[in-house]
Amino acid sequence: MVTRRILAVGLIGYNFMGKAHSNAWRQAPRFFNLPVNVRLKTICGRNRAAVKKAAAKLGWENAQTDWRRVIDDSEIDVVDICTPNDTHCEIAIAAAQAGKAILCEKPLARNVDEAERMLHAVKKARVVNMVCHNYRRIPAIVLAKRLIERGDLGECIFHFRARYAQDWIVDPNFPLVWRLRSNIAGSGALGDIFSHIVDLARYLVGEFREICGATDTFVKQRPLKKNRRVKGKVTVDDAVTMIGRFKNGALASLEATRFAPGRKNSITLESTAAPARYFLILKK
Amino acid sequence: MVTRRILAVGLIGYNFMGKAHSNAWRQAPRFFNLPVNVRLKTICGRNRAAVKKAAAKLGWENAQTDWRRVIDDSEIDVVDICTPNDTHCEIAIAAAQAGKAILCEKPLARNVDEAERMLHAVKKARVVNMVCHNYRRIPAIVLAKRLIERGDLGECIFHFRARYAQDWIVDPNFPLVWRLRSNIAGSGALGDIFSHIVDLARYLVGEFREICGATDTFVKQRPLKKNRRVKGKVTVDDAVTMIGRFKNGALASLEATRFAPGRKNSITLESTAAPARYFLILKK
Amino acid sequence: MVTRRILAVGLIGYNFMGKAHSNAWRQAPRFFNLPVNVRLKTICGRNRAAVKKAAAKLGWENAQTDWRRVIDDSEIDVVDICTPNDTHCEIAIAAAQAGKAILCEKPLARNVDEAERMLHAVKKARVVNMVCHNYRRIPAIVLAKRLIERGDLGECIFHFRARYAQDWIVDPNFPLVWRLRSNIAGSGALGDIFSHIVDLARYLVGEFREICGATDTFVKQRPLKKNRRVKGKVTVDDAVTMIGRFKNGALASLEATRFAPGRKNSITLESTAAPARYFLILKK
Amino acid sequence: MVTRRILAVGLIGYNFMGKAHSNAWRQAPRFFNLPVNVRLKTICGRNRAAVKKAAAKLGWENAQTDWRRVIDDSEIDVVDICTPNDTHCEIAIAAAQAGKAILCEKPLARNVDEAERMLHAVKKARVVNMVCHNYRRIPAIVLAKRLIERGDLGECIFHFRARYAQDWIVDPNFPLVWRLRSNIAGSGALGDIFSHIVDLARYLVGEFREICGATDTFVKQRPLKKNRRVKGKVTVDDAVTMIGRFKNGALASLEATRFAPGRKNSITLESTAAPARYFLILKK
Repeated sequence: MVTRRILAVGLIGYNFMGKAHSNAWRQAPRFFNLPVNVRLKTICGRNRAAVKKAAAKLGWENAQTDWRRVIDDSEIDVVDICTPNDTHCEIAIAAAQAGKAILCEKPLARNVDEAERMLHAVKKARVVNMVCHNYRRIPAIVLAKRLIERGDLGECIFHFRARYAQDWIVDPNFPLVWRLRSNIAGSGALGDIFSHIVDLARYLVGEFREICGATDTFVKQRPLKKNRRVKGKVTVDDAVTMIGRFKNGALASLEATRFAPGRKNSITLESTAAPARYFLILKK
Repeated sequence: MVTRRILAVGLIGYNFMGKAHSNAWRQAPRFFNLPVNVRLKTICGRNRAAVKKAAAKLGWENAQTDWRRVIDDSEIDVVDICTPNDTHCEIAIAAAQAGKAILCEKPLARNVDEAERMLHAVKKARVVNMVCHNYRRIPAIVLAKRLIERGDLGECIFHFRARYAQDWIVDPNFPLVWRLRSNIAGSGALGDIFSHIVDLARYLVGEFREICGATDTFVKQRPLKKNRRVKGKVTVDDAVTMIGRFKNGALASLEATRFAPGRKNSITLESTAAPARYFLILKK
Repeated sequence: MVTRRILAVGLIGYNFMGKAHSNAWRQAPRFFNLPVNVRLKTICGRNRAAVKKAAAKLGWENAQTDWRRVIDDSEIDVVDICTPNDTHCEIAIAAAQAGKAILCEKPLARNVDEAERMLHAVKKARVVNMVCHNYRRIPAIVLAKRLIERGDLGECIFHFRARYAQDWIVDPNFPLVWRLRSNIAGSGALGDIFSHIVDLARYLVGEFREICGATDTFVKQRPLKKNRRVKGKVTVDDAVTMIGRFKNGALASLEATRFAPGRKNSITLESTAAPARYFLILKK
Repeated sequence: MVTRRILAVGLIGYNFMGKAHSNAWRQAPRFFNLPVNVRLKTICGRNRAAVKKAAAKLGWENAQTDWRRVIDDSEIDVVDICTPNDTHCEIAIAAAQAGKAILCEKPLARNVDEAERMLHAVKKARVVNMVCHNYRRIPAIVLAKRLIERGDLGECIFHFRARYAQDWIVDPNFPLVWRLRSNIAGSGALGDIFSHIVDLARYLVGEFREICGATDTFVKQRPLKKNRRVKGKVTVDDAVTMIGRFKNGALASLEATRFAPGRKNSITLESTAAPARYFLILKK
């Protein structure tokens, strides 16, 4: 019997995405024949009580409050970054310098400068790295990619349309959380959900030749805390809409919004091609 | 018993739209309580045999081959223009000068200059006039307009999206008909079907503050006649896509295409507003 | 030039179906190349003022209050019966005896006895006759019929499902109109709308080998007139549901209801076959 | 800190449902705040190599080939039965006699006699027991149940419709697996998937007053093994269709089929009520 290598993971962040990634690390070996075993070694967060509770609940061996300790841990092979956007750059560069494989949640960074520094660091360190554009691997996209590569949709793609719609901030009294602050999040719907469909557009159809886009912030002031009277300025976009032309001649129409009442997390993709008709994916 | 006035109509054009307008003039008094009676007096077209046949089939009293005779007929009250786009301007101006009420199919003209001359003529002549943006009157749009005016959709409209999709020229061997020639049609999907959804956007949501659009011609050469080898250049757009911002702050995403395989004549409108959800209209 | 024969029509009934049939007689020659011309000669109804108004509005030459006069009119070729169900039998038999071609609205009769007497009369008189199962001729059904006959759906049909749903009597205060009275209507949803989908099932799939059905009347008493306190008994079914087995082995599942809130006039047909998948028709 | 009780599970069966139940036992404590901890102690199956592999892959401590050993294990609290239907009765009765809590996959038994003996055994032993009608707990059904109990759908339910459709045996060369043999499975679509929607009908709407149903077997002979020429008789139903009347007066229309090409695992429920409209759940 062959002994398989064990991959030890350190996860930075234990909230929304931290829970989702914990689940993925725990379940992957149960559903797929992986070449390695996975060890959920350390989960890290700033609040000691909360991260300890998360470790127990989500199945991690250790809880840690300082992400530098995770990077300093020589047993850890992979650093998985699920923290707010303003910390991605620093953590990723440190992890690269420590020679760790890096998985970083999207949006990769708050701006192009941060992203380029991160890219430079992983290239220099020659470490395995990945931005978490997970929709590429859902079965419908895998199939769409294969159909396009095989030419089953036809020689020409005429149109590619995508929309990502949520509604969690439609209420003007929803508070000014970190995702609505530019200094932490970098951008709003643009980085959070538009980034997914831009990635899918490039993955499925190819690079853009030219684009034109617009963003808007429909609710400009929000309560600092829920039901509090003091308001602060929303400094990110609520919605983004874009048209473009791909290098292969197809026209693009992309849109992401957090102001689509009734849509919890809805992604729609449609491509018009000949002689095939179109493909359509709807998630609610 | 009151004698109602009779409205005598002269229809220029007897093909696709000529048939549709004949039906409308014939049926309107059977379904609605009109303040006047309608007389289908003269239908006009260049081919004598064809227009005579159309007159018999569609229920017109007379067939005529020269549109100037229709305009010269003092009994005719309304001139209804259903001809190819390159003739709209001349006919409409002559009809205005003759004091006729004018109904003109869209696109109104091949370019802004023609449109402005037509507008000047009807204003100067003070005649009743209308561009045939008929979708304003379909029940779903009438209801949407009322909901918006009443504020039933909420105080804010966030998004307005519209798509008009057809597929009649997807086949690259479809011939170079007049609708694909710029000198006659002026434009392609832009004037023919995009004009409808631009009109609906302005009717329902209001004026645009700024826009950005792109057009494309996917099949650049087509046979001069069906199954013929000689090809000519397609000089209009096959598709148009546009984003914009309305004066009231809503974002727009509009698209029209003749390259949507499987869509014969499909219009989709969607508006996202709060607290109401959205309205959606689908026609196939 | 050939002179075409003129078909003179006498229409009994001027309300809901009378209007629809008037439209059909008026429009057919404008859209189809008929071998005859159609003359809208006489429309007939019991209320003199109303039938005169209908004649003017709908385009009939004469208004008549006694249907026997229509049958006695030797110029009339076709008698079109659009009256309440309790009069179908008597009018149709008299029309047959007078040698008229007969078009009768569904349900043909209130019961099997009436239907058999009508059938006997038209057979004996050898007159052209038709029950108005008009859905057979809508394009989607014509296509479905052709696909099935060609074997394009496959050798075996496994399931045939149909539902006809309306909601016009969901309100328990909707009054006890004639369609809800057994002595006039014969039955409720059963004859009025279930008859359409039973006809389509037999037309598309074939004869039934065995069936089992149930009906129900959800609102058992209704006001005699709108907003009046005095109530009367509803003596017809509000809904009918049925399963069955066709002679060719397919299973049937059919349902009609007037208690489907939100469905104005919705017909759904679905057939499961191999190797083809299914066809689906939705009307709202 | 309170020490929570540990619940030790013994799972009989390691294939389709065995994998699903392994996942559920593994994940439940990660997503819900359970009053106990869960221990995946023993997984059991007849093939030693396969069950050992399953234990490693799915995360069980021990692999066992004799289910009686699982029941004899005094540490095991819960026996989870995921075996073919012909073994449910014997295992469940033995587990009850051993005082285990029992979770048994549906259909509970091959026939009423077996089911009654099982029921008698758990009642006599007073053990916790449950048939795995898991759809009751999906969020849409939980919400539907709450809406109905609160009266939010209105006082009267008129119609309840459900369909469960699969297509995995449409191919007539699909082999005669145990699910198609009456002596092992008891029934076909009836017990396997119709049982789910009958359960949901009773859970959501209430007990039936009367029913009428039909089953059919479309493909009567199948290869004993894939691509083998020797055929055996299919002894279960391929599809079942049913109408009924609930005690509360609503009409039922239920159907389950393994012959719905294109439907992998599709459940549709619809209820018509007043004044609310309807609810609709679609799974593909």
